[in-house]
Amino acid sequence: MKAVAVFPGKRAVRVINDAPEPQLQSPTQVKVRTHEVGVCGTDKDIVSFTYGSPPPGLDYLILGHECLGEVIEVGSAVKGVQKGDLVVPRVRRPCPHAICTACRGGHPDYCITGDFTERGIKEAHGFCSEFFVEDVAYLHRVPSELRQIAVLTEPLTIAQKGLRQLGHIQERLPWRPAPGRAVVLGGGPVGLLGMLALIRRGFATTVYSHKRPPNPKEAIAGEVGAPYLSTQDVSAQELVRRVGAADVIYEATGVAKATVDVLGALAPNGVLILTGVPSHGEELTVDGAALLKQLVLHNQVVSGTVNAAALDFDMALEDLSHFRATWPGAVERLLTGRHPPEAFVDVVNGKVSGGIKNVISFR
Amino acid sequence: MKAVAVFPGKRAVRVINDAPEPQLQSPTQVKVRTHEVGVCGTDKDIVSFTYGSPPPGLDYLILGHECLGEVIEVGSAVKGVQKGDLVVPRVRRPCPHAICTACRGGHPDYCITGDFTERGIKEAHGFCSEFFVEDVAYLHRVPSELRQIAVLTEPLTIAQKGLRQLGHIQERLPWRPAPGRAVVLGGGPVGLLGMLALIRRGFATTVYSHKRPPNPKEAIAGEVGAPYLSTQDVSAQELVRRVGAADVIYEATGVAKATVDVLGALAPNGVLILTGVPSHGEELTVDGAALLKQLVLHNQVVSGTVNAAALDFDMALEDLSHFRATWPGAVERLLTGRHPPEAFVDVVNGKVSGGIKNVISFR
Repeated sequence: MKAVAVFPGKRAVRVINDAPEPQLQSPTQVKVRTHEVGVCGTDKDIVSFTYGSPPPGLDYLILGHECLGEVIEVGSAVKGVQKGDLVVPRVRRPCPHAICTACRGGHPDYCITGDFTERGIKEAHGFCSEFFVEDVAYLHRVPSELRQIAVLTEPLTIAQKGLRQLGHIQERLPWRPAPGRAVVLGGGPVGLLGMLALIRRGFATTVYSHKRPPNPKEAIAGEVGAPYLSTQDVSAQELVRRVGAADVIYEATGVAKATVDVLGALAPNGVLILTGVPSHGEELTVDGAALLKQLVLHNQVVSGTVNAAALDFDMALEDLSHFRATWPGAVERLLTGRHPPEAFVDVVNGKVSGGIKNVISFR
Repeated sequence: MKAVAVFPGKRAVRVINDAPEPQLQSPTQVKVRTHEVGVCGTDKDIVSFTYGSPPPGLDYLILGHECLGEVIEVGSAVKGVQKGDLVVPRVRRPCPHAICTACRGGHPDYCITGDFTERGIKEAHGFCSEFFVEDVAYLHRVPSELRQIAVLTEPLTIAQKGLRQLGHIQERLPWRPAPGRAVVLGGGPVGLLGMLALIRRGFATTVYSHKRPPNPKEAIAGEVGAPYLSTQDVSAQELVRRVGAADVIYEATGVAKATVDVLGALAPNGVLILTGVPSHGEELTVDGAALLKQLVLHNQVVSGTVNAAALDFDMALEDLSHFRATWPGAVERLLTGRHPPEAFVDVVNGKVSGGIKNVISFR
């Protein structure tokens, strides 16, 4: 079958036409025909050979971890999905170690040992191929009306997990805070999906991103009523003057300088959620004392979050239905390009269209 | 009456003998004879005129916020304490603003406006005087058997609030983690009291402090079974090799470089509790990308905490009773010197005894 694969040893990324077509090997497995695969910053790191690793014994890794597909075959013990259903797969699989409380409890997103695998990223093939096989336990059924946008489920799960954690963290406050104000740092797909999730949860949300308006990101923010400010034009202090200090900052850039700068907009008792994974070092000179002082004197929290749980996928799908009903067309406009598998590297490196979220289509 | 006061306008700190002796002015107030007042880093900043402010209209501030005293007079409506009782006062008082959810709810430790007052620190006289008057709502009754150590209540409340918040933050994990391992960064009074609180809560706790062993801090750690390692001899990586990665790091230095360095010892899903308030800027060059990446990929949290609530004072007193019963003499040995009010500045600046916790005695 056709697949997009990285060969780290050969420093090559290419479409292969002879990848073995996977077959059901256990009664709880499901065979899926891939419809669409989203690409993101992690893929960029993989195709530049700074991240990612093939399954043991192989010299290549099939790429792709944001996926929407259609069930074409189910094992005899599969319950909950059937042929013709649309599904989205989760990404991370548990490590094998008995000592890992997280993975043994079915929570590999909190894996303690680091020996988890991730489809399309770490020691397990991804979904950027005509077909894949997965255990039903790792699949989420997608309502058919979400066919056009469900490839966004996985990047939206980052916000789901981050905001679930936020809820627990704010239980530390001896009162139940109203949602308040949020700032999303970064106008990429993770940022804009985070924006929608925050707005739905009642936060007055501002997008704070590098690119100056007008631009397509700012247009989508405008459609859902979120102010959009450029980090090039507006300092964190000015942002506070314009929209107020943020009870929550949702960081979706992986840029350390921008992250430190935006801390100036965090309100007392506020939480900075970190989601961005930088790919290169970034030397930064800061007044470390001022940072410590701010966090301590204002009871502030910084919370890193990675990957997501089954619950987050269910919630992301529920959110997508809500977003679609509330803001018709807005989520669709996050998907700015559909490309053939052959275009994978160019899409990942921003050489085509340059829009918001680009996907590889197998349909 | 005798009091130790700072005159910021005159850049002077001295004992005054003619401070007005406060009298009861409402039926819920209590008059207290001061026994002991602890000094800490905040006092150091105040006596060097970089922090602190007198009550409105006055040119001086009576110092002291860590206090043990004895009730000598109670208002007609006072319940819960009586003449002869030992008491410890809280420090922070609410701001006056209607919009402050925190202060209006009785939680000034989370004040949103910053317009709180703090006795002995910010716009309200402290307790380093022969007598003080306080509303009974801000006093905590001290069991008489804690007479020798209850001046440590206030610095111990920092750990109480930090560890209460930790409990809420770790509710984000989908399982209930066992206490695990803790590292205390800094062997001062806040650090060593944090160590005792962590050990009581079941954490296998290591003290990680600048000063090389043998020294009195290391001796107290040894008495309660906590390994003591010097940051000068042992890197964070070596610390992990020796005692394992820390599920909780309790920072009690206010030194940014040491704080960034110790992050290397934080386990996946771990929490770094920040309590130290730096008094000077500290320029620091770091790989900001590596820091972000670590926090994100390991689901780690950094949690700043300041001041404490009524509950924390109650819990601190309960902890002190437990510590005293479990490790006879250990807490007493944190108190390394008792000095007259005239010695305040020298004590604060470490010019006498150089021990762990020094107090001013009015007895």
